[in-house]
Amino acid sequence: MQTPSLLSLVQTAVEAGATLAFALSGLLEAARKRLDAVGMCVVAFLAAFGGGTLRDLLLDRRPFFWVEHAEWLWGLLALCALALPFLRARHFEPTERAMQWPDALGLGLFSASGTQLALQQELPGIVAVLMGVVTATFGGVLRDVVCNEIPKALQDHRPYALCAFAGGWVLVGCQAGGLGPGWALLAGAATATALRVAALVSGWRLPAWTPGEGH
Amino acid sequence: MQTPSLLSLVQTAVEAGATLAFALSGLLEAARKRLDAVGMCVVAFLAAFGGGTLRDLLLDRRPFFWVEHAEWLWGLLALCALALPFLRARHFEPTERAMQWPDALGLGLFSASGTQLALQQELPGIVAVLMGVVTATFGGVLRDVVCNEIPKALQDHRPYALCAFAGGWVLVGCQAGGLGPGWALLAGAATATALRVAALVSGWRLPAWTPGEGH
Amino acid sequence: MQTPSLLSLVQTAVEAGATLAFALSGLLEAARKRLDAVGMCVVAFLAAFGGGTLRDLLLDRRPFFWVEHAEWLWGLLALCALALPFLRARHFEPTERAMQWPDALGLGLFSASGTQLALQQELPGIVAVLMGVVTATFGGVLRDVVCNEIPKALQDHRPYALCAFAGGWVLVGCQAGGLGPGWALLAGAATATALRVAALVSGWRLPAWTPGEGH
Repeated sequence: MQTPSLLSLVQTAVEAGATLAFALSGLLEAARKRLDAVGMCVVAFLAAFGGGTLRDLLLDRRPFFWVEHAEWLWGLLALCALALPFLRARHFEPTERAMQWPDALGLGLFSASGTQLALQQELPGIVAVLMGVVTATFGGVLRDVVCNEIPKALQDHRPYALCAFAGGWVLVGCQAGGLGPGWALLAGAATATALRVAALVSGWRLPAWTPGEGH
Repeated sequence: MQTPSLLSLVQTAVEAGATLAFALSGLLEAARKRLDAVGMCVVAFLAAFGGGTLRDLLLDRRPFFWVEHAEWLWGLLALCALALPFLRARHFEPTERAMQWPDALGLGLFSASGTQLALQQELPGIVAVLMGVVTATFGGVLRDVVCNEIPKALQDHRPYALCAFAGGWVLVGCQAGGLGPGWALLAGAATATALRVAALVSGWRLPAWTPGEGH
Repeated sequence: MQTPSLLSLVQTAVEAGATLAFALSGLLEAARKRLDAVGMCVVAFLAAFGGGTLRDLLLDRRPFFWVEHAEWLWGLLALCALALPFLRARHFEPTERAMQWPDALGLGLFSASGTQLALQQELPGIVAVLMGVVTATFGGVLRDVVCNEIPKALQDHRPYALCAFAGGWVLVGCQAGGLGPGWALLAGAATATALRVAALVSGWRLPAWTPGEGH
């Protein structure tokens, strides 16, 4: 019983770090857009919990994560209250660069756990994988929509959703191949995170639409 | 039994006035953005019923208010049909100023009733308060998102969601302290409305993000 | 039993054609906005399935269409993969013009079937008609919101949602008048599609907001 218990400890730590990274991405975008204190909290909340909440709405699961663990809401409020006086505009860039790594961990963990929750409802593989992608990316999409931007995840030609997609299929394959859920989760999450890190390090770019003629 | 029945009469009147104020805010924004007749109805609907509908989706409550009381939908259509020929651009500003007062009443009533509905599901206090804030503010957020604006509630540095937040905590405190639901609702709603009116009258502003250096 | 079976065959063909038209409208908008490959798939998905999914969320129906028929998700991915190399910017206009006709068919079919699903839940007529309008139009609304545009359906002064609205009432009337569900569906869908085609051919325009003075 050592391994699962260690796994679950690591999982909680990764979850906390990644949620913090997601929330900070919301805070920074809200600060850039000169939202007020309420706006910063709302956008941080959407970035941190929006993806999982949309997944739960689609899967008809209750209670939501932030309802069951309401202490995270207090943490989010504390984060916003702390960030307001301490963050300075010159901190934006370094904060975002530092957040890339917990964010990549979160991408893996959230997409894998979203996929697994959908598999538990005996949904088809492609639907489960999509639910994983929604979990990992739609927080950022909601953050950008509310801030009146085209979502970065759909536009910046960096593989992000695609890493979640690949990791989801690895998880589906592992579970279909008889691997236990804990190990399948680990394999899926590791794949997504590794791909994301590789993409960040190597500067991979997604194929773009290149119109032949002007429009 | 006199008090509750009078209370419920007042509650219905406040609800009607506030829903009208919310719908008119949608109509004015749609007119400013030069939407067509369909767009005006849709944005008025989102502004009037969007917050409560999102709360019910999150709390998994059915039927929605506008499904149970479908006559309100007819009222909304009638409002849009009437507004189209009668409103003129020079009416925008005075209409908005006049609407601030029923809007402040609605802010109190809707946030308090949203909080109370969540408490009935035995949700934690902070979640219940957030549901009240969602009820009171997300109609306006959806209105602005569809009109391709950053939501005013997140940006204009006026306390709005914050008044709903404070009123929600008063309600939670009253109910925890043993006050009956009717009186707790009244206390919460009155707090939120009073704070909003004070903010409007005194010109309070929310703390803003002030970046130390350019970005 | 000949007629229903033929009807259902025609219905499937219309559904497929219309879903393709909706998805292509998403692809074209994503390409115009220079989204990446992930963005094109997401926007095509929202345009194709967003309206029906929102209706099902509001009606609390599960499973969603694209969960029950997951093969459509594969079709959508294939469409995006094919469109990326083959579509050129000079194809945008002719593709959009060609898509108007399957889109008009889809407008009729989706609004009528959405209305009928709501009637099966014994909802009031106006709510059922609104659900039909949501089914037919909110895919396009979500597509435009994510692409950071004011939704075309609310702004272009062309009757679109209005045709769905009229067709919905015809269906409600037919069913209240004792017509069988198959024929009522046909009547509602035909009305909406015929109105849309007439609007396209004749260039009908919705009444606009014409402010008397500057703003």
